[in-house]
Amino acid sequence: MLAAPAEARKKYGPAPATEGGLLDDVNGYTIARDGTVKHFNGLLIGKDGKVKALLQPNDKRPEWLDFRLDGHGRTLLPGLIDAHGHVMELGFALTHLDLSATTSLADMQTKVANYAAGHTEPGWIQGFGWNQEKWNLGRFPTAADLDLAVKDRPVVLERVDGHALLANSAAMAAAGISASTKDPADGHIERDAKGKPTGVFVDGAMALINKAVPAPAPIERDDAFRKAQELLLSYGITATCDMGSTVDDWNVYRRAGDVNAIRIRIVSYGRGVETALSVAGNQPTPWLYDGHLRMVGVKLFADGALGSRGAWLKQPYSDKPDTRGIPFMDDTRLKNLMSRAAMDNLQVAVHAIGDAANDQVLSAIEELSDTYKGDRRWRIEHAQIVDPADLPRFAHDGIIASMQPTHETSDWKMAEERLGPARLKGAYAWATMEAEHVPLAFGSDYPVESPNPFPGLAAAVSRQDASGQPVGGWQPQERITMPQALAAFTSGAAYAAQAEDRIGSLEPGHLADFVLVDTDPLTTQDPQAVRHTQVLETWINGIRVWVKK
Amino acid sequence: MLAAPAEARKKYGPAPATEGGLLDDVNGYTIARDGTVKHFNGLLIGKDGKVKALLQPNDKRPEWLDFRLDGHGRTLLPGLIDAHGHVMELGFALTHLDLSATTSLADMQTKVANYAAGHTEPGWIQGFGWNQEKWNLGRFPTAADLDLAVKDRPVVLERVDGHALLANSAAMAAAGISASTKDPADGHIERDAKGKPTGVFVDGAMALINKAVPAPAPIERDDAFRKAQELLLSYGITATCDMGSTVDDWNVYRRAGDVNAIRIRIVSYGRGVETALSVAGNQPTPWLYDGHLRMVGVKLFADGALGSRGAWLKQPYSDKPDTRGIPFMDDTRLKNLMSRAAMDNLQVAVHAIGDAANDQVLSAIEELSDTYKGDRRWRIEHAQIVDPADLPRFAHDGIIASMQPTHETSDWKMAEERLGPARLKGAYAWATMEAEHVPLAFGSDYPVESPNPFPGLAAAVSRQDASGQPVGGWQPQERITMPQALAAFTSGAAYAAQAEDRIGSLEPGHLADFVLVDTDPLTTQDPQAVRHTQVLETWINGIRVWVKK
Repeated sequence: MLAAPAEARKKYGPAPATEGGLLDDVNGYTIARDGTVKHFNGLLIGKDGKVKALLQPNDKRPEWLDFRLDGHGRTLLPGLIDAHGHVMELGFALTHLDLSATTSLADMQTKVANYAAGHTEPGWIQGFGWNQEKWNLGRFPTAADLDLAVKDRPVVLERVDGHALLANSAAMAAAGISASTKDPADGHIERDAKGKPTGVFVDGAMALINKAVPAPAPIERDDAFRKAQELLLSYGITATCDMGSTVDDWNVYRRAGDVNAIRIRIVSYGRGVETALSVAGNQPTPWLYDGHLRMVGVKLFADGALGSRGAWLKQPYSDKPDTRGIPFMDDTRLKNLMSRAAMDNLQVAVHAIGDAANDQVLSAIEELSDTYKGDRRWRIEHAQIVDPADLPRFAHDGIIASMQPTHETSDWKMAEERLGPARLKGAYAWATMEAEHVPLAFGSDYPVESPNPFPGLAAAVSRQDASGQPVGGWQPQERITMPQALAAFTSGAAYAAQAEDRIGSLEPGHLADFVLVDTDPLTTQDPQAVRHTQVLETWINGIRVWVKK
Repeated sequence: MLAAPAEARKKYGPAPATEGGLLDDVNGYTIARDGTVKHFNGLLIGKDGKVKALLQPNDKRPEWLDFRLDGHGRTLLPGLIDAHGHVMELGFALTHLDLSATTSLADMQTKVANYAAGHTEPGWIQGFGWNQEKWNLGRFPTAADLDLAVKDRPVVLERVDGHALLANSAAMAAAGISASTKDPADGHIERDAKGKPTGVFVDGAMALINKAVPAPAPIERDDAFRKAQELLLSYGITATCDMGSTVDDWNVYRRAGDVNAIRIRIVSYGRGVETALSVAGNQPTPWLYDGHLRMVGVKLFADGALGSRGAWLKQPYSDKPDTRGIPFMDDTRLKNLMSRAAMDNLQVAVHAIGDAANDQVLSAIEELSDTYKGDRRWRIEHAQIVDPADLPRFAHDGIIASMQPTHETSDWKMAEERLGPARLKGAYAWATMEAEHVPLAFGSDYPVESPNPFPGLAAAVSRQDASGQPVGGWQPQERITMPQALAAFTSGAAYAAQAEDRIGSLEPGHLADFVLVDTDPLTTQDPQAVRHTQVLETWINGIRVWVKK
């Protein structure tokens, strides 16, 4: 508490009750779901960690405060919310070998060999982030390729989209894989001409290898969580949806909460109905740990990903006409699972990338909406390739399109190959979603993409990648405005997480979650400047939880 | 708060700070682990829910109190602690068909048929508590017996000891059981002369049926918990060890805690190492929910039960010389699991009933004690049949004998048949354990026995059952004193649960968990009067959480 001046104390007696803390002289914004921007100059934070008032330059400041900080005109935004990420996978990624910057097969091989040399403790080598599209390889890598880097220890490397993995021969041997291993119903094994697995396992087939990987020890899980949380806070993410928490993941968050070590807000969607029912029971959990953790729903999968051709399309892949991808469930099973969750008021979020998968989920929601009325907030995760004829179906049932702008800038070339020109009209169709009044929520799908939301904002308004490609933007008619993009990363994401009454916008009574940044995204005309925005401070519940060193 | 009299307020101004609440004129006891009894007349409870002082008749009472209750001389005991129970199984037992009072096969058949007629909703009928020993049947019951009661729906009935079940033909069909179904390594299937399963599945074989039983819905779990908690509080149980919590069980307790609905204290031992590591991580959890929940360790099994001849004996069963029972794990696996738990400072509690199983666990502890030093509080659960030569090994490593007095009074006849006279010397050997200075903790193994601790206290001092049999007590040299028995159900059980610094005895600074009862067990000479003690009030954290209606 700021001490009253000695004379004041003498004259007036002890100070009256304080009115909280003030961040003054800020360039503050809050953005409503419809894109309306409110500007303010001072943020008054109550003792309860909630916004007490947004002050304009001429508004009177309270006299008695717990703290008064001068913002020196810096830009203050509502805390960014990632509507679709994977907290623990981010944490494990931060402790595993990152291959996302590799530019060729040889580059990957070198990095794996070097990592093995530097990590001589016995056991598996785990990595992630490879993308053969970036290597101009024209084919998937193979176990034989990987054996050239490391032969004597099992190595397993997840593809950038998390929907395929590459194993070396030792890993396949440890997992008992042979030519007689059958493809599971929800995935497939890449094979050579003789039917022998070549080392790449797609979607459901990944489990054949993963079941042989030793489970992380609890201390490794807790460490991974701490690393993920720290990175998210450093990017200004104050809340995140955790898309597909396992019971083990949930227990990690609870352990952190139990020792008062959870800083970020996590809105959890249980991985499958069984997880959600085991954890949450017959209703979403309350907000736990002073509003830091809640399980609100369930995550289901309708298909795989586009890169590994697991996305389920209505028509064959343009670059592999013998497949339409992998539907994960038949209509009945999907509806049964969605119904089982909805029965207990659990929110349903379904991964759907291909147009066939989106159609399937839309149909399921349409059928279930007759039974489960009211504010259900069905979510389709990714909604990446949608048949233009299906786009109006989103708004009809208030379905939330939970999309990831950086997927577009990472994938557009690959998407053109997979889909051909005719199907691009409904691909990453943000402006069309907005025009159709579909509630839009943005995220990054970290660790598939970086959790940094600023490249996402840049992508949303430009549809250009970090190098400014393609010039003019890809399918530029689907660009949206910065207020729309900011809304999707703040108030829109809060709405998708059933939390718009407390976070996502800075209004009196909402929690004081916000960031101070070095760039004003609303006045900057250059998307690349927005992309490189630095977060200076991250505040949650009116407390500064991260500061740039 | 008691209002100050108006005149006092006028004369002295507002009341000074109060000193908590007082239960006065009680016949109060607290019992140390060594059996030392302390008597008091008033219990002063601080605002923090802790014992502030034990008052003697002549001690001055504080003037300003939040409440002052007259005990009218009633007996006040520390809250009873059950060192070994199964909270959720008790809850499910309270919602399933209770067959523990059946006196014959025909009686069981009638009760099952009546239950089916009264529960016409489709699905499985689940029951428990049968004991063919009480039926004088001379054999196990069969599916054919049960089909005579209910044929058109699956019925599964757990034996009283939880180590065997009886299925009807519909249940066996639903589970896909046939003559070709093999016995699992850790259990066996009763079969007829042709090898066809007859309907009884012992120990590990129970899973063959149980996997077909639909899992309870979350709302059923939550309801079962509420029922179990209510019953435990009504018997004066203020804290319980939960021996073998599953992740689902744990999530039920957390849900109750999250909505402030957990009243009893639960010290949880995860069912197997995986559960404990998933929940607790690399150390016991903190005390959660204001001291109501903690996972402190892991529950393992070395063998089965005596009734179903699953207990692992050094010599063959007297009444079935072709078997020595079922060891659940080889020495190496047991030591590996115990080591994995001890590595993360999780307490290890191992079920061991037969003398061979006790020997195995003692040997494992002796070997592990070289590595895991300090105050480990290894627990052997049941320690029921111990080779007299092995008894001194308990005290050597400070091993806690966690025993259940009512098992003795329920089982003594059966034990004589199973063991013959020569082996009875180390059976349910409470006095010998005391003489050997083994830390003793008592419980009931509910729902195998009633969770009511007063029959346990009566059994401990008399070794006679409810009908006073056998006259003079069974193996009466193993009777213990009432202070010893009370200590094992209070301070001894608290020590076993690593909670003696907060519960189990009423000392200043400990939590005010206590009961008011209608009988003074320390002055009553009649064990049957102790057995029928009624709990009048149950207090936890200085709050009255249950009162007799």
